[in-house]
Amino acid sequence: FSNVRNMKQLEYAILARRVNQIKEGLKQGVRKPYKEIIDVSWGDPHRAGVKPLSFVRQVVTACIYPQLINSNKLPADVRQRAQRLLGECAGGSVGSSTATAGIPELVHRVSDFIMRRDGGAPSHPENIYMSSGAQWALTVTNILNVLVNREASTRTGVLTPGPCYSITNLSIMELGAVIVPYYLNEEQGWELQVEELHRALESAKGVCNPVALYVINPGNPSGHVQSRKSMQEVIRFVSEKRLFLLADEVYQDCVYGEKSEFVSYKRALMEMGPPLSDTVELASFHSASKGLMGECGLRGGYVELVNLDRAVMKYIHNLFSKDSCAPVLGQLALDLMLNPPQPGDPSYPLYNAVRTEKRSCEVVNSLLGFYCQPVEGGAFAFPRVYLPPKAIQKAKEVGMKPDTFYCMRLLEETGLLVSPGSEYRQKEGTYHIRYKSNIMEELLKRLSSFHTQFMKDFS
Amino acid sequence: FSNVRNMKQLEYAILARRVNQIKEGLKQGVRKPYKEIIDVSWGDPHRAGVKPLSFVRQVVTACIYPQLINSNKLPADVRQRAQRLLGECAGGSVGSSTATAGIPELVHRVSDFIMRRDGGAPSHPENIYMSSGAQWALTVTNILNVLVNREASTRTGVLTPGPCYSITNLSIMELGAVIVPYYLNEEQGWELQVEELHRALESAKGVCNPVALYVINPGNPSGHVQSRKSMQEVIRFVSEKRLFLLADEVYQDCVYGEKSEFVSYKRALMEMGPPLSDTVELASFHSASKGLMGECGLRGGYVELVNLDRAVMKYIHNLFSKDSCAPVLGQLALDLMLNPPQPGDPSYPLYNAVRTEKRSCEVVNSLLGFYCQPVEGGAFAFPRVYLPPKAIQKAKEVGMKPDTFYCMRLLEETGLLVSPGSEYRQKEGTYHIRYKSNIMEELLKRLSSFHTQFMKDFS
Repeated sequence: FSNVRNMKQLEYAILARRVNQIKEGLKQGVRKPYKEIIDVSWGDPHRAGVKPLSFVRQVVTACIYPQLINSNKLPADVRQRAQRLLGECAGGSVGSSTATAGIPELVHRVSDFIMRRDGGAPSHPENIYMSSGAQWALTVTNILNVLVNREASTRTGVLTPGPCYSITNLSIMELGAVIVPYYLNEEQGWELQVEELHRALESAKGVCNPVALYVINPGNPSGHVQSRKSMQEVIRFVSEKRLFLLADEVYQDCVYGEKSEFVSYKRALMEMGPPLSDTVELASFHSASKGLMGECGLRGGYVELVNLDRAVMKYIHNLFSKDSCAPVLGQLALDLMLNPPQPGDPSYPLYNAVRTEKRSCEVVNSLLGFYCQPVEGGAFAFPRVYLPPKAIQKAKEVGMKPDTFYCMRLLEETGLLVSPGSEYRQKEGTYHIRYKSNIMEELLKRLSSFHTQFMKDFS
Repeated sequence: FSNVRNMKQLEYAILARRVNQIKEGLKQGVRKPYKEIIDVSWGDPHRAGVKPLSFVRQVVTACIYPQLINSNKLPADVRQRAQRLLGECAGGSVGSSTATAGIPELVHRVSDFIMRRDGGAPSHPENIYMSSGAQWALTVTNILNVLVNREASTRTGVLTPGPCYSITNLSIMELGAVIVPYYLNEEQGWELQVEELHRALESAKGVCNPVALYVINPGNPSGHVQSRKSMQEVIRFVSEKRLFLLADEVYQDCVYGEKSEFVSYKRALMEMGPPLSDTVELASFHSASKGLMGECGLRGGYVELVNLDRAVMKYIHNLFSKDSCAPVLGQLALDLMLNPPQPGDPSYPLYNAVRTEKRSCEVVNSLLGFYCQPVEGGAFAFPRVYLPPKAIQKAKEVGMKPDTFYCMRLLEETGLLVSPGSEYRQKEGTYHIRYKSNIMEELLKRLSSFHTQFMKDFS
């Protein structure tokens, strides 16, 4: 089992195990300065008590239990929507499997959404695959399968950012590819700088053969929202270096920065015109799990593939075929996210009220003793934490990475669960923690007072 | 793109394309001897118009739209079940993601189900992963990832049956592994014979390093149900040859043969006692998509891993982590399938009536001009079709495999869609077709009269 020996330990797993022990202890009456664990390490909105959108739940309900379509318990637009969606399911049931790429009518509406979003830049349904929440892993797996040449003597490389969600790196390594990290510039608000891409590519020489660049915008965990100028530089870079561009845009609805605006890579590319717009190979990902919608449990998403060779598209289609289809309810949820109620629809007032309320959740950017770049988008804050040498020494003694040690102390003493920066490939010698960016004032107070005490203990 | 060049053409894809053209034609008024295509190439029950089980749909509905839990529109046991399930979801919502292995309480109930099914043989929740409908592909991918040694000079091999579902072989090849086929004995009702396993293993010498044996019981497309004696031989074989046993048991609820009985590989193994029961590495798969339940669209399944090394389990856990979690509603559907209403519950009479009715659907075993082994289980019949030399010649001329040619003619002339045996790795020189085993008498008549005419045309 050679792969097992190369296994990467997930830092978060250490904390997760301890969480289970603490929970068990609390149940059995062990005394702690808190009554329950508050987990702000996830982006998952419903887990944190956010209520689902009524409109989405009502439509999905009527699809599962069609008797309700004829009842007057549900608003007229909900019933119409459900009727239409059921008519698009094979056999009129959400219990049947769908075409590999998803329900054809829904795939068409995804492409309509993309064109609306991108100011009319053309989008073709045959380039879109609806996918399960495991979409990113699965889709990238499918794409990398095309890119990775197993017979070549040099291993395939993929450029990924530092910091980056650990599972992303894990998925790529699992395919036998090598991670080539490029670091975002923390001092410049986690900006992606093209010189750093050049440096990273250079560093891969003699190690692997880089075939793709992965970007996530808005960033996770960075919270940075890329400017169009920066995206254009990235596009020129991948074109020049003949890299496949993997654009993770699942947080496109989560933009808070006053001056920030989400521009899709597809749009930036199309508006640059030929030859770039005809040649740069791009995969863009979106999901029903994030943002206002937050239906993580339903597992819906899509990928749009741009400028891929026909033979490659056919191969990718075969790869997708092996997973039969994405969960039907996830497909429906995605459709509802992309096509929300419009002014005039009976469900619009409630939908709009909730949307406005959620948008207004204040994003906390800074905290006493932390150094946090402005959070412009995404779901997380990723402040830098200064850890004194004594704390680093102590961490070493107990066999933990310094920021994992910090997170463990925080968990033990306050019941607050955040994740350590070492999970995200941070720059050597820097330490961070990641937590949901819209957490409550009360939690921040707890974090802040813990930090003050921690600094005293180890100064 | 070296992988693309090695791409395997899916025979079924040729037919699927033609189906779309015919459908489009029918819409535009093209005259055909039929009004619509009847697709009996899928196992998908709802697609074929089978109604979903009310109990399952009612519980899932109440979970999605919890307001219904307090209404008196739904039976009391449905509401209780929904209440309990929601209490087990994070934040009380099916919209939150779950632990990697699935909702812990549900995973425990899966292990209870396995113990009940297997006459009390122990099953441990920590060995169970709930997974999406893409479970098989994903899970096997994860397991093979452990088994496949990419650094070794000899490629990894996996033994799979002929006939075998093509996507299974595709998934395995996609991981860079080599398929080592073993053929089921058609004359003996598609029996798995251990001498053939020895032959297959021998044939791999110098080609690849076989690490796993894949079996599917009840069979797809064979419809064969394995005897316990045959399973014991397989178990001794994998033990002796140190192979990992991948047991696909998704059709375990679909057994029709009068003398047939489903025994799980787990049970067969455990009842053989040590040292076998302590050492043979086994993964057993089940799904909510098949059988009585047939909720393909909800995508729920599980895998139980037996006798795996601790380090390997940890590694596999990490691999599963990258997909976040299985769709929550698929997890719920699986739970409801494994724990149906019991006598005395308000929902029991209706549930039981439907079950009895569905079970009684007659399975058609033979057809004029075909040679079909008894269908004892599974969802499909896989009759052998004798094709005259002139038909084989004609197929060659139009660039199709002979049975694909046969299926295409059948489609054109009767509107009936079945899949060709060449999709399933049949024995060289034999031809088959696969169709749903419980199709209606009327369809069989059509197929039968087509076949008579076909034989005339090419005699």
